Amino acid sequence: MALVQRLQSVCLHRSAVSLRFLSEQAKLREAWNPTPSFDPKVMTEFLDDQNHELHANMREFLSTDKFFVPQYDIPLAEERELALQRLKQLCDKKFISVHFFSTNPTAVFAAHENASIVDGAMATKMTVQFNLFGGTVLKLGTARHKEVLDGIDSLTNIGCFGLSELGYGNNAVEMETTATYDPETDEFVVNTPTVKAQKYWITNGAIHANHMVVFAQLYTGEVNNGIHGVLVKIRDDEGNTMPGVTIHDMGIKMGLNGIDNAKISFDNVRVPRENLLNKESEVHEGGEYTTKISGNNRARFLKVADQLLSGRICIASMSQGASKACMAIALRYSATRLTAGPSGKSDFPILGYQLQQHALIPLLAKTYIYDIALKQIQAMYAKFSVPGRDIYTVSHREIVMMCCAIKAITGWHVNTAATICRERCGGQGYLAANRFGPAIAGSHSSMTAEGDNSVLMMKVAMEYIADMAAKMKPGKNLSAAVEMLRAKYTPGIVQRKGKNGSGRDIAYIHHILNLREKILFLQVAEKMRVSTKDKAAARAARFEKWSQQEQDSVQAAARAYSDKLISDICYEKIGLADPSIQPILKKLYNLYLITVLQENISFFLTNNLISRKGASSLRDDFDALIKEIAPESLALAEGFGITEEMLSAPIARDWELYNSYDNAGEMKKFEDLARS
Amino acid sequence: MALVQRLQSVCLHRSAVSLRFLSEQAKLREAWNPTPSFDPKVMTEFLDDQNHELHANMREFLSTDKFFVPQYDIPLAEERELALQRLKQLCDKKFISVHFFSTNPTAVFAAHENASIVDGAMATKMTVQFNLFGGTVLKLGTARHKEVLDGIDSLTNIGCFGLSELGYGNNAVEMETTATYDPETDEFVVNTPTVKAQKYWITNGAIHANHMVVFAQLYTGEVNNGIHGVLVKIRDDEGNTMPGVTIHDMGIKMGLNGIDNAKISFDNVRVPRENLLNKESEVHEGGEYTTKISGNNRARFLKVADQLLSGRICIASMSQGASKACMAIALRYSATRLTAGPSGKSDFPILGYQLQQHALIPLLAKTYIYDIALKQIQAMYAKFSVPGRDIYTVSHREIVMMCCAIKAITGWHVNTAATICRERCGGQGYLAANRFGPAIAGSHSSMTAEGDNSVLMMKVAMEYIADMAAKMKPGKNLSAAVEMLRAKYTPGIVQRKGKNGSGRDIAYIHHILNLREKILFLQVAEKMRVSTKDKAAARAARFEKWSQQEQDSVQAAARAYSDKLISDICYEKIGLADPSIQPILKKLYNLYLITVLQENISFFLTNNLISRKGASSLRDDFDALIKEIAPESLALAEGFGITEEMLSAPIARDWELYNSYDNAGEMKKFEDLARS
Repeated sequence: MALVQRLQSVCLHRSAVSLRFLSEQAKLREAWNPTPSFDPKVMTEFLDDQNHELHANMREFLSTDKFFVPQYDIPLAEERELALQRLKQLCDKKFISVHFFSTNPTAVFAAHENASIVDGAMATKMTVQFNLFGGTVLKLGTARHKEVLDGIDSLTNIGCFGLSELGYGNNAVEMETTATYDPETDEFVVNTPTVKAQKYWITNGAIHANHMVVFAQLYTGEVNNGIHGVLVKIRDDEGNTMPGVTIHDMGIKMGLNGIDNAKISFDNVRVPRENLLNKESEVHEGGEYTTKISGNNRARFLKVADQLLSGRICIASMSQGASKACMAIALRYSATRLTAGPSGKSDFPILGYQLQQHALIPLLAKTYIYDIALKQIQAMYAKFSVPGRDIYTVSHREIVMMCCAIKAITGWHVNTAATICRERCGGQGYLAANRFGPAIAGSHSSMTAEGDNSVLMMKVAMEYIADMAAKMKPGKNLSAAVEMLRAKYTPGIVQRKGKNGSGRDIAYIHHILNLREKILFLQVAEKMRVSTKDKAAARAARFEKWSQQEQDSVQAAARAYSDKLISDICYEKIGLADPSIQPILKKLYNLYLITVLQENISFFLTNNLISRKGASSLRDDFDALIKEIAPESLALAEGFGITEEMLSAPIARDWELYNSYDNAGEMKKFEDLARS
Repeated sequence: MALVQRLQSVCLHRSAVSLRFLSEQAKLREAWNPTPSFDPKVMTEFLDDQNHELHANMREFLSTDKFFVPQYDIPLAEERELALQRLKQLCDKKFISVHFFSTNPTAVFAAHENASIVDGAMATKMTVQFNLFGGTVLKLGTARHKEVLDGIDSLTNIGCFGLSELGYGNNAVEMETTATYDPETDEFVVNTPTVKAQKYWITNGAIHANHMVVFAQLYTGEVNNGIHGVLVKIRDDEGNTMPGVTIHDMGIKMGLNGIDNAKISFDNVRVPRENLLNKESEVHEGGEYTTKISGNNRARFLKVADQLLSGRICIASMSQGASKACMAIALRYSATRLTAGPSGKSDFPILGYQLQQHALIPLLAKTYIYDIALKQIQAMYAKFSVPGRDIYTVSHREIVMMCCAIKAITGWHVNTAATICRERCGGQGYLAANRFGPAIAGSHSSMTAEGDNSVLMMKVAMEYIADMAAKMKPGKNLSAAVEMLRAKYTPGIVQRKGKNGSGRDIAYIHHILNLREKILFLQVAEKMRVSTKDKAAARAARFEKWSQQEQDSVQAAARAYSDKLISDICYEKIGLADPSIQPILKKLYNLYLITVLQENISFFLTNNLISRKGASSLRDDFDALIKEIAPESLALAEGFGITEEMLSAPIARDWELYNSYDNAGEMKKFEDLARS
């Protein structure tokens, strides 16, 4: 048994082993396509982009240490402790460090991706400890916070990020918590005035954290200087809650129950003045307030909440880890799950059915394309954020837009991918051990944590329009500009220029994606124009238009920007890939583009950017591409570089073995059999 | 506190109470629209359609008995026991009985709907006990099974439905379990020959059941008579597993963990010959096999699995219960969750935002429309299935198509509704206590239990095409028929006939929905034509076309049938509704129709059934209808007739109170405060 299992595990990595030692499932996977057109290892290297050693070492560690084998029926307290202890092991192995932000931020994201595949709760605790809490102390703290900083990598100091309040999760700038300077004692008094001002959803808060960055309206005398971060010790070294601090455990959530979320409030808790994170702003002894940040309180808020930006890339990385795992599990199962073939006997893998291929392969393509885009955005963020390394001519505004867009797109994608994968794996997909349930629950966190996706899309649109306005002649005739754009690219002209404007003509699709972005933003910009000169009336009119009338257009425009951004990045990156993987990557890219056209076909048809004939023929291109990609799908899943042990799910492995004994829904015995 | 809560609870039912006693949340809900255009009670009566007394009594019972207050952080064993004991209470109150199938089947469905709102696991145990197990014993059993039947309502006999096997969930007719008649002892020998032949996902199996209807290939001598149901006792009266029976607990699932699912196998277990459910087929002493069912083994299988048909209506009813609860929770929260208004202060309910309205209101409309259709299908099923009550001229084929369609449509809908409601409620939606998590997990069961939705859609298409073929001249020119249909209804003509073919013109939309159904089925039928006369080659060719080439068209055609069916039913039923609720129902119906057009806009545009201008203008109609419906949305949620206690979710109630103490994520204390 053990030998069979070991061989099977090896088989995932496509070593040439004799088929006769393999389980039925392994044989069926092998039979799906014994000779894929590319080497999955080359693909893994391409997808990983950077941090190859970290990826390899971390994957190996996560695949060999049995501490990472999932456990399902365990008490809440144990589940939380497990998440912490797993994180500790990753820390001990130095797979993650707050100092990566200074040296190589992309390594932070790589660690998040791998962590999320094996334990989403652990990954979330990681992101709060190292990005939100750690990153904030690193970037906004100074020498006087070194002791806190030094305890982060070892988890000696476990931290929380106290931004959201019960009543102000969607409008943090209005938060009610105050930090009032008391010149008598040279301290800040941190206070929660109302029920709605409780710090809410605080990860690591219910059990594990001893420190918290509390964001609060900073008062010196009667002056509110806006939101600043102040370090508050919430537990002493024995783990007892500090006086004046109230911590309530938030209990069971729809998923990620290994995270100990809390609501936390402060009853005039006093902390030394030095606890203010003072890199940008300072309250001096006696109460004088100084700041390096120009602008109003809102500008200061954006600066202190800056870690949300990298946080969004962290979440995108976690989303992608989960999407990859889901796709690999569903595809591997689909190649081994037999149903009625032409004879009516159960001898035909469901992956051979068009129903299964049309559900899974477009999601596989998106998973690839989003991953390529995400890796590039990670690299651009890293080059932007590490001083002296900014070789790209990209503005802060562009980085913000890209981070918001990729977080939203990958967040929605993992929800769709996990949902469809679950559905297409039927009852087996419903078992917790097969991982889709945890992935779906985790995806909901991806969609609204660190900024509600739709609100982030609004932010993208707002930044885009502000940028447009800055570059545009005031009073420009925007309707005319839209008409000009439309006229320039009627399908007839495109057909003469390109290959009949078909779904296989990438230059043509590129054209119309570009036009869609421009037209939609010009239209939104035009609608947002306000004629009144009265400031209050203009503000009210803009609110009315933006929030009550044009929101669908705002969302569509931001989506058009995102689709185009992702397409642009992939076009370039695929062209630079190893030639052996370019053909399959181009097919995935083409399929992605066709799905974008299909999902927005109403826009392209009603704006005359595609002909009715062209739209009808998309289906043939779609069908044909999927037929070309399907035989490569298991190799593409292998290209994600995720080991069988990391996937864990029995349906991705020898599920007949898993069901041959009393498994009680757990994985331990299976892993013993597989690894012994 | 108690008084405030009581008043608030009353307020849900819109009694005129003074606002000054209400919580902030109750005030905000009241302020949303103090004078809706209709009485929600009239709406409830319309939606419930039948069984008004059962609905009223069951809702009252579920709202007053604290045993139904959800518990979240409890051990698995306790969760399962709770589901059973809750079901027992419903049985004791006679809200459900297997004999309803003989007297009033719609009462079964009403009980399912209400049960699913408070506890999906309990509802699932109910559906297996009363529909799958109970209904099968009732309909396929005879006098000799009376003792088993008599113990069903009281839960003295708890049963399982042993159809699916690990390897044959998707092709049950190929199952491997055998029941072989032994003339020596006049017994059946029930046997599980392989790992893949284990009975899988067996609800009630892991802990509670003592009886099981085992479906098996029935052998007399060497002859396989096809699949039949045999009663097997799996536990004795002390709850010990019977000799030869092996029961494995399937452990933790992505949801519905109150269900005790098992995989079960039999090692040549002997049961008396009389345990065969023999209403339709009999094995006589000595081994002679007789049957009333004409046709082959497949025909017999369909007869013995007939309870799956009502099972699909049960699942649809559960899905609708959950959809209604999710919509009510999300809408009530959205009216009380404040965010930045025109001033930037947090004083504006998110339900006032177009983003929120456009996400929620179309789902609310679908929830209404699907419910109206489901109730009519329930009534038609009831009239068809109870002998002597078939007053509709509807065939068994039509009933099958309607049941499959409504199960699939409502199953997908509850997944979408729960997912979007969760997303639009942000972090609060992530708490288990706010119910979307359990609803999402439950929806996955709705999508693939009792038939994978996509496979049911195939079944719909297959039945439709068989019916078409039976009524059609062989060799009819199908392409020409499609062209004729298209030509007859170009947008130009429709525009002259109707009101400019706009989204508000219901007759026009009705026309094109009708055309879509006809065109798509004619196209599929044409593609499915096979020229070869060789039987095996024809079979292979049809498999290739159906499964590898035309599956998208098959799914689209079945969807077109479903959309049209639902539209037809609603058109008629709304016309018969109380005049006071017709205006709002017509708006919901119109919005539903527009979303159907939007979701299939590529078809309507490329088939020239809507003009580009018409398609562009749909957005204005969509926006306008939502603006008209939004003020009524809380009253519409109230029209579902679900009490605050049944909704349970704190965000649907006084969530500031819920967060004012250490709730640990649980509901008990809140209910004590609210009900004392």
